[in-house]
Amino acid sequence: MPVRQGAILWFTGLSGSGKSSLSQALAPIIAQHHPVEILDGDQMRKALCRDLGFTREDRDENVHRLGFVARLLARHGIVALVAAISPYRSARDEVRARAAAEGIPYIEIHTDATLEALVSRDVKGLYRRAIAGEIPNFTGITDPYERPDTPEIAVRTDQETLSESVARVVVELRARELLGPSTERVSR
Amino acid sequence: MPVRQGAILWFTGLSGSGKSSLSQALAPIIAQHHPVEILDGDQMRKALCRDLGFTREDRDENVHRLGFVARLLARHGIVALVAAISPYRSARDEVRARAAAEGIPYIEIHTDATLEALVSRDVKGLYRRAIAGEIPNFTGITDPYERPDTPEIAVRTDQETLSESVARVVVELRARELLGPSTERVSR
Repeated sequence: MPVRQGAILWFTGLSGSGKSSLSQALAPIIAQHHPVEILDGDQMRKALCRDLGFTREDRDENVHRLGFVARLLARHGIVALVAAISPYRSARDEVRARAAAEGIPYIEIHTDATLEALVSRDVKGLYRRAIAGEIPNFTGITDPYERPDTPEIAVRTDQETLSESVARVVVELRARELLGPSTERVSR
Repeated sequence: MPVRQGAILWFTGLSGSGKSSLSQALAPIIAQHHPVEILDGDQMRKALCRDLGFTREDRDENVHRLGFVARLLARHGIVALVAAISPYRSARDEVRARAAAEGIPYIEIHTDATLEALVSRDVKGLYRRAIAGEIPNFTGITDPYERPDTPEIAVRTDQETLSESVARVVVELRARELLGPSTERVSR
């Protein structure tokens, strides 16, 4: 079988910062050029990580497993969109290093928003509960989030619309030749 | 992207019965027709199942995770070869049912050999240790193995050579139209 070019798009950011929304909006656009799979952190916790909690060790193991499955898919020409808080830099960098060792493009996308904006928006009501002490180890409140130093792409989801974020990611992916020149283009 | 036909080939059997050898021998033959990935139980325990031991609950969760990844791959047209003891019928049948629900062909391949043959061969020296009580929960010795009632394919690895087993599986896969008519045929 011909080897096609897969890739890993890794969406990292605080809860409610738009990782899932952005990956879901991008998937059909990327699917015009490449087979796509979304690995959503919440869903993957049920499927592959039932044992894991929210200690640093467990969060790192969660990222490790997501990275393993993403590489497996990317090796077969699939673009894996991973949406997971993945708060620790060293765990993300390990995924990046392992992908690089296999020649798999790894694009880190930081869905950046101020904690204040997320708390005030509080789409799922989780921040209110975390601040009230009802959810332990909540990233940004009682657990750390290590911001990416030099993500390939950063979108300010508290300052731009979802469509604007999507457009910026698409421009970046085209600049990196991971997408064809136009989303109108059909599959090769 | 065009949807290609993936499948799950699930190799079940006692330790040392030839699951890994058979899957490794078949992979390059299947790769002439389909993209292939081997999910080997021992390797997957390190990558995705570090937390799991050998209780029934843990063994079932192990099979559940392997099944999840195999379906993920098969959805993208990849033939996933899963080599895992998978001793409990209900767990295997759950993988089968979930694959069927998605229209993914699931072929159970029982690498069948008598316990006596495996103990006398004892390739890795594990049976000797299990019988001496050094390995708890060892399938076939101190843990049950539920034989498949009606596997799609059964090979008697204690009575035939690896080449003979490979040939029998290839014939069966062709009969089920999961392989082209000749292994000389190049990828479509």
